[in-house]
Amino acid sequence: MKSKTQSVFFFAANKSEGSASMVNLLGGKGANLSEMCNLGIPVPPGFTISTDVSTYYYKHKNQYPKDLEAEVLKNLQRVEDEMGKTFGDPKDPLLFSVRSGARVSMPGMMDTVLNLGLNEKIVEGLAELTNNPRFAWDSYRRFVQMYGDVVLGLKPINKNDVDPFEEIIDKRKHNRHIELDTELDVEDLKFLVKEFKRVIKARTDNDFPEDPMVQLWGAIGAVFGSWMNQRAKKYRDINGISHEWGTAVNVQAMVYGNMGNDSATGVAFTRNPSTGENRFFGEYLVNAQGEDVVAGVRTPQPINRNGKKKLDDYSLESLMQKQYKQLKNIRKILEEHYRDMQDIEFTIERENVWMLQTRRGKRTVAAALRIAVEMHEEGMLTKEEALLRVDPEQLDYLLHPTFDPNATLNVIATGLPASPGAATGRVVFNADEAEEKAANGKDVILVRIETSPEDIGGMNAAKGILTSRGGMTSHAAVVARGMGKCCVAGCEEIFVVYSARQFVIGDKSINEGDWISLNGSTGEVILGKAPTIEPEVSGNFNKLLEWADAIKRLEIRTNADTPEDAKKAIEFGAKGIGLCRTEHMFFQEDRLTAMREMIMADNPLWRRSALAKLLPMQTEDFIGLFEAMDGYPVTIRTLDPPLHEFLPSRLELMVKLLDLKLNLKGINDLSEMDNVLKEIRINEDLLSKAESLNEFNPMLGKRGCRLGIMYPELTEMQAKAIFEAACRCKHNGIAVRPEIMVPLITSKEELVHQKEIIDRVARDTMDKHGIELDYMVGTMIELPRAALMAGDIAQVADFFSFGTNDLTQTTLGLSRDDAGKFLPFYIEKGIYKNEPFQKLDQDGVGRLVKIAVNEGREAKENIKLGICGEHGGEPSSIEFFHKIGLEYVSCSPYRVPIARLAAAQAVLKERAENQKKVNPKKDALIKV
Amino acid sequence: MKSKTQSVFFFAANKSEGSASMVNLLGGKGANLSEMCNLGIPVPPGFTISTDVSTYYYKHKNQYPKDLEAEVLKNLQRVEDEMGKTFGDPKDPLLFSVRSGARVSMPGMMDTVLNLGLNEKIVEGLAELTNNPRFAWDSYRRFVQMYGDVVLGLKPINKNDVDPFEEIIDKRKHNRHIELDTELDVEDLKFLVKEFKRVIKARTDNDFPEDPMVQLWGAIGAVFGSWMNQRAKKYRDINGISHEWGTAVNVQAMVYGNMGNDSATGVAFTRNPSTGENRFFGEYLVNAQGEDVVAGVRTPQPINRNGKKKLDDYSLESLMQKQYKQLKNIRKILEEHYRDMQDIEFTIERENVWMLQTRRGKRTVAAALRIAVEMHEEGMLTKEEALLRVDPEQLDYLLHPTFDPNATLNVIATGLPASPGAATGRVVFNADEAEEKAANGKDVILVRIETSPEDIGGMNAAKGILTSRGGMTSHAAVVARGMGKCCVAGCEEIFVVYSARQFVIGDKSINEGDWISLNGSTGEVILGKAPTIEPEVSGNFNKLLEWADAIKRLEIRTNADTPEDAKKAIEFGAKGIGLCRTEHMFFQEDRLTAMREMIMADNPLWRRSALAKLLPMQTEDFIGLFEAMDGYPVTIRTLDPPLHEFLPSRLELMVKLLDLKLNLKGINDLSEMDNVLKEIRINEDLLSKAESLNEFNPMLGKRGCRLGIMYPELTEMQAKAIFEAACRCKHNGIAVRPEIMVPLITSKEELVHQKEIIDRVARDTMDKHGIELDYMVGTMIELPRAALMAGDIAQVADFFSFGTNDLTQTTLGLSRDDAGKFLPFYIEKGIYKNEPFQKLDQDGVGRLVKIAVNEGREAKENIKLGICGEHGGEPSSIEFFHKIGLEYVSCSPYRVPIARLAAAQAVLKERAENQKKVNPKKDALIKV
Repeated sequence: MKSKTQSVFFFAANKSEGSASMVNLLGGKGANLSEMCNLGIPVPPGFTISTDVSTYYYKHKNQYPKDLEAEVLKNLQRVEDEMGKTFGDPKDPLLFSVRSGARVSMPGMMDTVLNLGLNEKIVEGLAELTNNPRFAWDSYRRFVQMYGDVVLGLKPINKNDVDPFEEIIDKRKHNRHIELDTELDVEDLKFLVKEFKRVIKARTDNDFPEDPMVQLWGAIGAVFGSWMNQRAKKYRDINGISHEWGTAVNVQAMVYGNMGNDSATGVAFTRNPSTGENRFFGEYLVNAQGEDVVAGVRTPQPINRNGKKKLDDYSLESLMQKQYKQLKNIRKILEEHYRDMQDIEFTIERENVWMLQTRRGKRTVAAALRIAVEMHEEGMLTKEEALLRVDPEQLDYLLHPTFDPNATLNVIATGLPASPGAATGRVVFNADEAEEKAANGKDVILVRIETSPEDIGGMNAAKGILTSRGGMTSHAAVVARGMGKCCVAGCEEIFVVYSARQFVIGDKSINEGDWISLNGSTGEVILGKAPTIEPEVSGNFNKLLEWADAIKRLEIRTNADTPEDAKKAIEFGAKGIGLCRTEHMFFQEDRLTAMREMIMADNPLWRRSALAKLLPMQTEDFIGLFEAMDGYPVTIRTLDPPLHEFLPSRLELMVKLLDLKLNLKGINDLSEMDNVLKEIRINEDLLSKAESLNEFNPMLGKRGCRLGIMYPELTEMQAKAIFEAACRCKHNGIAVRPEIMVPLITSKEELVHQKEIIDRVARDTMDKHGIELDYMVGTMIELPRAALMAGDIAQVADFFSFGTNDLTQTTLGLSRDDAGKFLPFYIEKGIYKNEPFQKLDQDGVGRLVKIAVNEGREAKENIKLGICGEHGGEPSSIEFFHKIGLEYVSCSPYRVPIARLAAAQAVLKERAENQKKVNPKKDALIKV
Repeated sequence: MKSKTQSVFFFAANKSEGSASMVNLLGGKGANLSEMCNLGIPVPPGFTISTDVSTYYYKHKNQYPKDLEAEVLKNLQRVEDEMGKTFGDPKDPLLFSVRSGARVSMPGMMDTVLNLGLNEKIVEGLAELTNNPRFAWDSYRRFVQMYGDVVLGLKPINKNDVDPFEEIIDKRKHNRHIELDTELDVEDLKFLVKEFKRVIKARTDNDFPEDPMVQLWGAIGAVFGSWMNQRAKKYRDINGISHEWGTAVNVQAMVYGNMGNDSATGVAFTRNPSTGENRFFGEYLVNAQGEDVVAGVRTPQPINRNGKKKLDDYSLESLMQKQYKQLKNIRKILEEHYRDMQDIEFTIERENVWMLQTRRGKRTVAAALRIAVEMHEEGMLTKEEALLRVDPEQLDYLLHPTFDPNATLNVIATGLPASPGAATGRVVFNADEAEEKAANGKDVILVRIETSPEDIGGMNAAKGILTSRGGMTSHAAVVARGMGKCCVAGCEEIFVVYSARQFVIGDKSINEGDWISLNGSTGEVILGKAPTIEPEVSGNFNKLLEWADAIKRLEIRTNADTPEDAKKAIEFGAKGIGLCRTEHMFFQEDRLTAMREMIMADNPLWRRSALAKLLPMQTEDFIGLFEAMDGYPVTIRTLDPPLHEFLPSRLELMVKLLDLKLNLKGINDLSEMDNVLKEIRINEDLLSKAESLNEFNPMLGKRGCRLGIMYPELTEMQAKAIFEAACRCKHNGIAVRPEIMVPLITSKEELVHQKEIIDRVARDTMDKHGIELDYMVGTMIELPRAALMAGDIAQVADFFSFGTNDLTQTTLGLSRDDAGKFLPFYIEKGIYKNEPFQKLDQDGVGRLVKIAVNEGREAKENIKLGICGEHGGEPSSIEFFHKIGLEYVSCSPYRVPIARLAAAQAVLKERAENQKKVNPKKDALIKV
């Protein structure tokens, strides 16, 4: 046990004072170095100065605790004893690396100093000892440079400014007519060291410290200081890491992989990080230092025969059999100990294997999936643990084609990654043309300023969709995700000029017919045809999701408007439709005509006659859905969007009218003239209707149940179609469970009004067919008032389905179609932590949902509760919905697998939390 | 005390079983008849069958309680004893009136039967007794007709159908070549009775009942039945009267004012109902029945000399001095007893005065005000009681000119009564023209489809504003109310055609320059010049409001953007500005130019340079406001509306560009060509900016603090102007209390961001001037999330001001600019009880306000809380704001008096409620 005031923790094989559980105190690197020592793995000895010192340091104006110096000296001695070398001894000098190591990895953010302990005298000793003056002087040159940059602060803050040391090196190389650093000889290196020291003296007014102990304290101070440098602070802000945590400092004996052909250095993963295959995987270089593996001067070699890409590759497995075997053994120890795939660094110094690092290995989602499943099958993990090892959000990547990672791409702009996938095609600017060209077998990308429901045919026909406006839940984004279609939305960098049939980015213009590619997972817009790889769903995918199903409590439904969508969702494991948007059914040519007739009608009689034309079509739509869902519940929402969405836009009509009128002059034929005049009249009528339906804020306008209340015949027709379809299906032996959902309710009275119509039509239709149906009538809770009045509304609702998209829009006063203009800025500035249309705003919107859940249940115990907003497919939101006790989430078909896994993880996380509550002490012990 | 089963309550002078406090049981009429008897006032004796019987009757399928018959008979006997006449005795017959009487007056909704107790034999006795066969037969004719209509159901349900009795009368008159009913002689009347009975027999298959007792039970049943007739039910639905209450039936001895020149009948008010003057006021007719006063055949005469309009009017005061004195005495008794102005009916039968009715008199607001104040001064009412006697909402009428009530108006359409007042002027369709014509001394009415901030100059110049779109809180309505300008908004009946410079209503078209008049209190649009009366604010007005100020707890502030508005509001008693909308300051020509420059700027530098031009102007604006408010707090909101509001509309720009381009052809001069090309380029730039700023839902778009966060230089400029102005004012000895308010906050982080700028600028400016200022920084709570996060936000806010307009829009998902399309329908159908932009939705929006108040105070005890939405001037909402503990309400200047009175009433109502809680039994006693 550590004493209360212990600030420095020693580590060496089997002699460590720390362990992996002490990550908060020792940082990730330090804790894992200790842990490896505890496991008997060879690690160059050293010591870790704890993060508490860092905290103390900042709280006391860069002062150290008073006992620190003594502790450091004591531990330095221990390292000397372990290594049999002495710090500052020119004959057999002990050199150190000094590295930062925070609780969480912050790659490249903080500073490191290597080869510490050299000076003019010791470098000569080292040259003699190693019989390698160039090695010694190069080490010294690197040390002075690193120390000058990091500790003495000569590294320019602005990336674009030139490092003074690099400037000196460049000048020397230029004078000597050489190109590579490796071409510098001992004389060059000595010259450089001299020059470095001169510039340091000039800039800092101090000589470069020759005393190794002064060097050491300087480096320790610099590492602590680097915790608060600008880029580290920014990195923490972005990644939500507390500034309070502080960093540890690891002072470790240097070992060298470049001491000859019996030395080497390498990095490896305990399993393949791309595929997850259970095979040791890595690269190494003989007679090299860590930096050389990265520098790309020599090509690293595979560590085992299996990794060989070319016949003349030579593997560590063949070349250093004993060391390879030793590493394989370490790999086994580490995996069994950490029960996860590890990312390791090693150095072989004169045949001795030294481990320098181990940490959790980063991996692709395919690898994560395979590793989790196989580790369970190997007995290393329980099913529950395996389930927690895969990020649900990432499953998305497995379901869509991806670009070949080896291809070089010409990225010309980046928008929002609205719907994942990779798409390539020729640019078109118009939905009709997209359909036409796709029908002719051409791959097209539909490029629009924004999309509207009329574009659906074209969106479906296109390989991908690119819009210059709108957010992650804009029309384009939502529809594309529903279709599983690649989409980059709100790409504000591009400027679409419909009239010129081109779009412009800076000084580039891309014309209709040009090839572009879209990466829906990153938001990248790529010029030309980027090569893609098709996705492959492995057996592990289904295996893991079946485990998830056995654990999750939430039911997963899908948002689907067509039998095709519904079937796709069932394939992915959906157990019902949580949202069928009936309006999408009205956009096909023949239906749109009847719909417009309905809208143009001036009285209920005409409206009814137009609706009568839609009735048989809607009935067929629902039959298709019921058949596809075969007994699973189908939630059908009555008409929701404002009616003007079914008319051409005012602008469109005005332009058309202008065209028609300008044409009049050139017409000589009387009957042709009559035709044009008639067309003018029709368009003028449409324009006048569009004018009268035009709204300032359509989102808050005459839509949702407001339509069905003003035009009861509309609800009547839809109810008729639903029950007619249900009766016919039931007659044919298909089980049906219709749930009719009324949108945009704000009061009980509205639902009473609509439910009366629905129940009456249901009764009539069932009587007509002599069939009884189980059906439900419920409501969307998608406006703050509905949530606040839930107790009242529940009295007449069989179910609530939370429409968190609109609830987010109204609760935050945020139009999802317009938010693209400022929301990214808000997130960048940290004013909002998350994009609220992606991750549910749990504090605001979530509180309203909780109010409605509690008060709805209080009023009606068995009320069914679900959610059908976009958040239904987002893991952190799903966890929230699980916690507050919803019964189902509904999401687009391609997100069903994500929801299944996330729902299972929600259960597991809840169990862990409950465990914590039951036994808080146990947890506290683990944490220390 | 009544026994538990007593159903019938006798009344006669000093012998009543009921009283005024038994209104629920006896109905208004019955209770007051009993009360008058208790006061010793002569009332024809009678009895009241209680509302409990009505309830019993409906619950038991139109059956009466078993003891009812005996009770009725017993009381009938008592009436006979009192009158010394006998029911059914041909020699000296007692006749009855049978009248309904519910708890609340439902004028004309239910049925009445007069002269009940006549038959073929008794009518002859009556003729003999009165020596007036025509009186007797006319009474009988009326009875048979009324009984046939009401009890036997011959009255047509559809108003447009002809009453069979009237048909018979008309035929008779036609045959006899006479025009008036009074010309019918005894023979005619006998003929009519015979014909009436014939048609009754034919239609009902029954003879007309000759037995007076059968007649009586028939009439009682009919009155009970009339409670449930269609129009009564509808009336109750509209007026929120419970169907459960039921009606009482009053059976009362008939008295006759038409028995000769010693008889008379009249109606009177104890004070003048128009002016409130404390003088007996009424009309009467000698030798006439109640109906004759209404029928208009003879002109009613004033009851006292003071009421004489013409020299030859003869007053009751002169003609029947004794009876007049008796009535004056009754008047005194009633007023002192009821402590309110009464509306009475009386009949003088052969010199005997009989009172038939007393009830609270309806009155104009001017009268209400005067009566309340004078009754206090007369010692009849406490100040508190006087305050409760005036409907605050109605004070509005006193502050605006009104149309001469005697003028005949040609009302051509009706819109929403958006801002009260009466305005007359010539139609203009364009704000600039309105200003131009007004500058030339012309009265104009600005007619627009809708108004926008650019129209403000024209709105100010116009006498009134008429819009065809938008609700009670549309731009036009809000701005007009702020200006105290008459406005009729959302008049959907009219169709505005800008291009034709006319608007159309049905087949009428009204052209530019035509005269129209607007009644902003009723929403009426009147063709031509309607004559108006200027308002006069009496001393009573200020007296009452001073009493109110002494009692109210809420502080009343005003929403004012100009020194003129601010001064007006102070005149009306405002104690500060609760909302200054700075954007209104940017619409003057020179400012708009700088504002557009700012918007067109592509980077912060250019933006700053444009803002620098606005700074001195804004500073002057604020100096004006601070000077006007002289030490009262001034709440200034930073820029709120989306920037595109400051640009011409896209449509406008497109049309202009089209025009310019079509013009190009005709130009031959090169420099002219250059000018036009330049203008084209400017407009193209504007159009492209307007396109890029265009939003789907501007209400939920880039506005409010989102502007100040994206363009901090904007907030900076405004803060500079505020503090610069404040420092200069303080330097000149003017007290200043600036409160800076950040709009559209959803999270603490946004306020932190803006407050940092404001505090910094404040510090710099105060340092520059060497002056310290007390100022506050707070936020609007106008989005649901802000209310839900109030505990968080309060940590950094000095005050909250609830923006209930926007909070209503978002909580209900209701755009106030678009709601006109369905909200009236919702209210008509009873789906919403009130227009939520007029009366606060207490259940939904109010709940959010309560959450914010509670959690805000919990986080910061001394946080200042107020409200600046339109609801701040609406009495029921003010009562709510008082109850939940806000500190102030802010409303448009013209509503300040309303708010003052409503705030005092809120205190008084609260006191009464607390009293009830302390002593519930006392209250229960009063209620029974």
